[in-house]
Amino acid sequence: MPGVIVTDPPKATREEVAELARYGVATVHEAMGRTGLLGSRLRPNQQDTRVAGTAVTVLSWPGDNLMIHAAVEQCGEGDLLVVTTTSPSTDGMFGELFATALKQRGVRGIVTNAGIRDTSELREMGFPAWSAAVSAQGTVKATGGSVNVPVVIGGEIVRPGDVIVADDDGVVVVPREGAAEAARKSRAREEKEAATRAAFLEGQLGLDRYGLRDTLTRLGVEYRTYDEQTKHTGAGS
Amino acid sequence: MPGVIVTDPPKATREEVAELARYGVATVHEAMGRTGLLGSRLRPNQQDTRVAGTAVTVLSWPGDNLMIHAAVEQCGEGDLLVVTTTSPSTDGMFGELFATALKQRGVRGIVTNAGIRDTSELREMGFPAWSAAVSAQGTVKATGGSVNVPVVIGGEIVRPGDVIVADDDGVVVVPREGAAEAARKSRAREEKEAATRAAFLEGQLGLDRYGLRDTLTRLGVEYRTYDEQTKHTGAGS
Amino acid sequence: MPGVIVTDPPKATREEVAELARYGVATVHEAMGRTGLLGSRLRPNQQDTRVAGTAVTVLSWPGDNLMIHAAVEQCGEGDLLVVTTTSPSTDGMFGELFATALKQRGVRGIVTNAGIRDTSELREMGFPAWSAAVSAQGTVKATGGSVNVPVVIGGEIVRPGDVIVADDDGVVVVPREGAAEAARKSRAREEKEAATRAAFLEGQLGLDRYGLRDTLTRLGVEYRTYDEQTKHTGAGS
Amino acid sequence: MPGVIVTDPPKATREEVAELARYGVATVHEAMGRTGLLGSRLRPNQQDTRVAGTAVTVLSWPGDNLMIHAAVEQCGEGDLLVVTTTSPSTDGMFGELFATALKQRGVRGIVTNAGIRDTSELREMGFPAWSAAVSAQGTVKATGGSVNVPVVIGGEIVRPGDVIVADDDGVVVVPREGAAEAARKSRAREEKEAATRAAFLEGQLGLDRYGLRDTLTRLGVEYRTYDEQTKHTGAGS
Amino acid sequence: MPGVIVTDPPKATREEVAELARYGVATVHEAMGRTGLLGSRLRPNQQDTRVAGTAVTVLSWPGDNLMIHAAVEQCGEGDLLVVTTTSPSTDGMFGELFATALKQRGVRGIVTNAGIRDTSELREMGFPAWSAAVSAQGTVKATGGSVNVPVVIGGEIVRPGDVIVADDDGVVVVPREGAAEAARKSRAREEKEAATRAAFLEGQLGLDRYGLRDTLTRLGVEYRTYDEQTKHTGAGS
Amino acid sequence: MPGVIVTDPPKATREEVAELARYGVATVHEAMGRTGLLGSRLRPNQQDTRVAGTAVTVLSWPGDNLMIHAAVEQCGEGDLLVVTTTSPSTDGMFGELFATALKQRGVRGIVTNAGIRDTSELREMGFPAWSAAVSAQGTVKATGGSVNVPVVIGGEIVRPGDVIVADDDGVVVVPREGAAEAARKSRAREEKEAATRAAFLEGQLGLDRYGLRDTLTRLGVEYRTYDEQTKHTGAGS
Repeated sequence: MPGVIVTDPPKATREEVAELARYGVATVHEAMGRTGLLGSRLRPNQQDTRVAGTAVTVLSWPGDNLMIHAAVEQCGEGDLLVVTTTSPSTDGMFGELFATALKQRGVRGIVTNAGIRDTSELREMGFPAWSAAVSAQGTVKATGGSVNVPVVIGGEIVRPGDVIVADDDGVVVVPREGAAEAARKSRAREEKEAATRAAFLEGQLGLDRYGLRDTLTRLGVEYRTYDEQTKHTGAGS
Repeated sequence: MPGVIVTDPPKATREEVAELARYGVATVHEAMGRTGLLGSRLRPNQQDTRVAGTAVTVLSWPGDNLMIHAAVEQCGEGDLLVVTTTSPSTDGMFGELFATALKQRGVRGIVTNAGIRDTSELREMGFPAWSAAVSAQGTVKATGGSVNVPVVIGGEIVRPGDVIVADDDGVVVVPREGAAEAARKSRAREEKEAATRAAFLEGQLGLDRYGLRDTLTRLGVEYRTYDEQTKHTGAGS
Repeated sequence: MPGVIVTDPPKATREEVAELARYGVATVHEAMGRTGLLGSRLRPNQQDTRVAGTAVTVLSWPGDNLMIHAAVEQCGEGDLLVVTTTSPSTDGMFGELFATALKQRGVRGIVTNAGIRDTSELREMGFPAWSAAVSAQGTVKATGGSVNVPVVIGGEIVRPGDVIVADDDGVVVVPREGAAEAARKSRAREEKEAATRAAFLEGQLGLDRYGLRDTLTRLGVEYRTYDEQTKHTGAGS
Repeated sequence: MPGVIVTDPPKATREEVAELARYGVATVHEAMGRTGLLGSRLRPNQQDTRVAGTAVTVLSWPGDNLMIHAAVEQCGEGDLLVVTTTSPSTDGMFGELFATALKQRGVRGIVTNAGIRDTSELREMGFPAWSAAVSAQGTVKATGGSVNVPVVIGGEIVRPGDVIVADDDGVVVVPREGAAEAARKSRAREEKEAATRAAFLEGQLGLDRYGLRDTLTRLGVEYRTYDEQTKHTGAGS
Repeated sequence: MPGVIVTDPPKATREEVAELARYGVATVHEAMGRTGLLGSRLRPNQQDTRVAGTAVTVLSWPGDNLMIHAAVEQCGEGDLLVVTTTSPSTDGMFGELFATALKQRGVRGIVTNAGIRDTSELREMGFPAWSAAVSAQGTVKATGGSVNVPVVIGGEIVRPGDVIVADDDGVVVVPREGAAEAARKSRAREEKEAATRAAFLEGQLGLDRYGLRDTLTRLGVEYRTYDEQTKHTGAGS
Repeated sequence: MPGVIVTDPPKATREEVAELARYGVATVHEAMGRTGLLGSRLRPNQQDTRVAGTAVTVLSWPGDNLMIHAAVEQCGEGDLLVVTTTSPSTDGMFGELFATALKQRGVRGIVTNAGIRDTSELREMGFPAWSAAVSAQGTVKATGGSVNVPVVIGGEIVRPGDVIVADDDGVVVVPREGAAEAARKSRAREEKEAATRAAFLEGQLGLDRYGLRDTLTRLGVEYRTYDEQTKHTGAGS
């Protein structure tokens, strides 16, 4: 449904966002039952940065950044801009001037499956970006689109007000209604991982910790010496 | 027209190159009416580096770097090597030894839509490179090609002597006859962007600065509250 | 042949690995007659790091890291984990917990044509990784596979115990029987390159050093002035 | 939300499906305001076939077709199977045996962004298929997933009971609540296109029919003779 | 230089086009010294069709087919439409209505590195098309571009009036000034190939016909029995 | 190990090849424990054709078909040519003249992960081909390579004399020592599939036939009505 700017979508609370910002993308994704990842094509423009914010979504025509201008007005403290196009595009729809305007409004970053530019300047000014492409290609302001409607990136639906968490591993979306639960489960998972880490440091094996030896046996995976295997396959390997 | 080494192509002047080197790739591309970009597949081997130089062009057979050897002799102070292949190739045609020879001759860098290698060494020695691939795959010296003929990278024509500007956003070519005008327009654009930046920092919106509210109205983009939108689409979104 | 864990494959010696670790991937690849590269899709998770180790190989079902757990037990000091999947996959099969367990056992790093996650943590803990993708996508432990059987990555066969050398240019495999010879030839190549580097620094051309002027003549490559070329092609170029 | 099989989703009516089946994918997509396309990666396994049906959706683990077995039971007359995976996969999850079972139940076809196999047999038996890949790669039945939950393919959401229309141009989804309106608008568009076709056959130009000459003027597009253009660009072109 | 419609470009003659139409794309490409191919991404929409025509070129904004409307007026008997976009695009810019208008004007076909739609209808009406994508995605008419300026597809420059030859192997461009020579050389090549074909049918080997045994010897390629090779590599292969 | 032509590799017997030719690629792949597929990138040049033959393997330099000439001499009745390149290449290394020579020698077809050309002619003369690309791009004869050494395509090793089976679903390799067993298991699988087909035609479900209901329960997959699911997810879906 292009052609709409929704002005007051419900949002996850600042507390929920702050809590989720404590966990990495992989942890949140696992905590939500391995859902919510925006795919492996989104890459960070900077290293070792993690942010979280509430999504302001943009659906643009390819080669056109008109609706990002419209979206700036809808952005405020704690938001994070999420931009997609109606057809695949690598154009550099977003750069330093937009980042200047958004940073001034308290926006946390930009996530887009199109392209960004002014990448060096974005790093310098500390405005984090995740994109599927880097391209200096400029865009026009000629065709309509929508702001704050549900959009799809990397096979996942992002609705306005949903929480976005992004770090070096990629980007994950947490539905706004499930933010508190996702944070709680992320904390639980992190505690479990801390225990596993400690066990691994003491030399315990995942095979034993997770009871996987039985799984291997049930699946018929066999242990063989190299000589047995060579005999079995009839060739040096 | 393979099989030719052109020895004395016309070139943009050093002053034109120096002037263009002051502007980023995105700025120059916009200043030239959004033309000249060598596509989003070329990525820098280093971060936060910008260079400009006059193109020495190479058209090579895939898997073969013979013509880069021929091109070295044609390279001098202020040049920048631009290499493409007659068929798509990711082979590492260019590495530290070539860079040593070129740096010694005052060459500014290398741009190729094939592959480079010795990437760590290139960074260490400060020889900037932009390529479509990184690969250690070696090449032979068995098939002819051309030096200083027009070549095509990323949908753009690069002629010998044209100006190449490259930074973290990619690579742009400026036709040698248009270098002075491109520099002038880049300066104008930068001044305009400085004014916009200042306005954005004071909270002005692009919607107002560029008069885009009328555009949105003309295109039929509607503002709705979340409740209106929910009623309209018949579902929570 | 999935479903086998081979427990005692022959391996290259520690001395061979240590010797090969002195040379870059491009050098070793050239020294072996331009063979052994695992393709241009594997990219390092860190910069300016080179490692070498003996391969412990893993063949996993896509979306499933069960066999990596089985492989950890087979890994020891000086090994390097090499993971592939039976179908193409970008899932993040490997992260910080596995790295913790492997580092504790003296493993040198991980190479996979699937995905990794916890990339920031891996860099922080100094566990080097090369992968075809970065993705937070989690995996299950439900389907069997093999450990220490020959696997194929990027068109090259990696057998358990073969030597893996990895740096910023990619990854190369050296067959365990050929490790000593590859190291010897790498050393010879490096010496030859040092001489070439010195010659290039003094201004010698590859055209002369490698006798390529005759090659150009034999191939019919012509030298022309820009005016001759313009006359020849009938257009300004 | 993996792990659920929904047994009685609402569906568009047979009449709505039958009406939509009269229009091509491009027509329906345009009639819905240029929305609903499942992207350009889905290609037909046969030529010159158009089908429409109500979606039974499947969300599977990569390399695993367990949930397609679960979905067969949920399929009936007039349905069309829509399969995606939680991570990108090209495996041949669907072949002639599944098609046999589905055809027997009155299912109209299969759409998947993973792979299919037995492609020759599928054509021979007249069971239409659209997929992102053809691969003989087999799958296991080891990991859970869902049936009849919303899934995403090519950036579009498909809910159970939505109408799928597929032909040589690709696949479009029509939300079940909007099926009647989409059919009505498709009919209107087809009538309009028939009039345009007749006008074009009599030699009318789109420039005149759509009033585009003014648009060109407004955008500053100039008409020039070849001589004028040559003078303008300073070179033969 | 977008924003121009050139009205009277020079063109290759009808006789030259007719002569070139007698030869396949591979033959013409070889005859021109292995140049002119528009890359391997352009695929035919029909099978076993070969056409030739003089190029009317279009440079469009992505997602926008305004300039194709402008181009129709510039097209006449014997022309062939060549469409590219300023950024990569897969949108279905061209379909049956455009084909109706063009066919009525005597146009021979369409070549585009963007997308086409109505593919079944195009085949049915006998209007040949080559494209990089098939997509029903519709486009707008909002942004300017150019007609009959030089464009680049697949690394090759196509100027208005150049000859395009297209068949199942792809598309080749012949510069208008070189059409007669290319036709002459194509004929010569075909005669040579006929002689080779006859020789091959009588059992002659390319090794002998082209004198390649010496090449193999010079390159150091050795003949070995399987036993010798096994001994040499130290393993069954 | 480039640079070798092996003249008398062991081969699977004609009877084994003939038996394997009776089964489709998917069947043989499954019968061998889901191994041997040469990946989803190889596509047939013709429809509804299945062939089997013993591999004559070729390892060529990219852009160079010298070694195919050398391979022709090594080909005889019942063989099938398998060509790969040392780096990725889409060039049209193989066309109608090679097919003429090979057909005259009784060769069954060509499989390559590079490109082919003369595709229409190949279909017309009934010489089946599977390739990763179609391209008219010509090649040189300048660099050495090998014939009848092990090669890798799509992650699988093909040794000379191994059996290749190819159809519309792709290409599978059967190690020569395992040909008889693979044929036997393929026959068994086909019989099993015939029984399944009959059961499916009578309405039996895979869920029941394969005992998958227990699997679903064990994995925690739940059945819900649409109302239950809506209540559970808190939104219409």
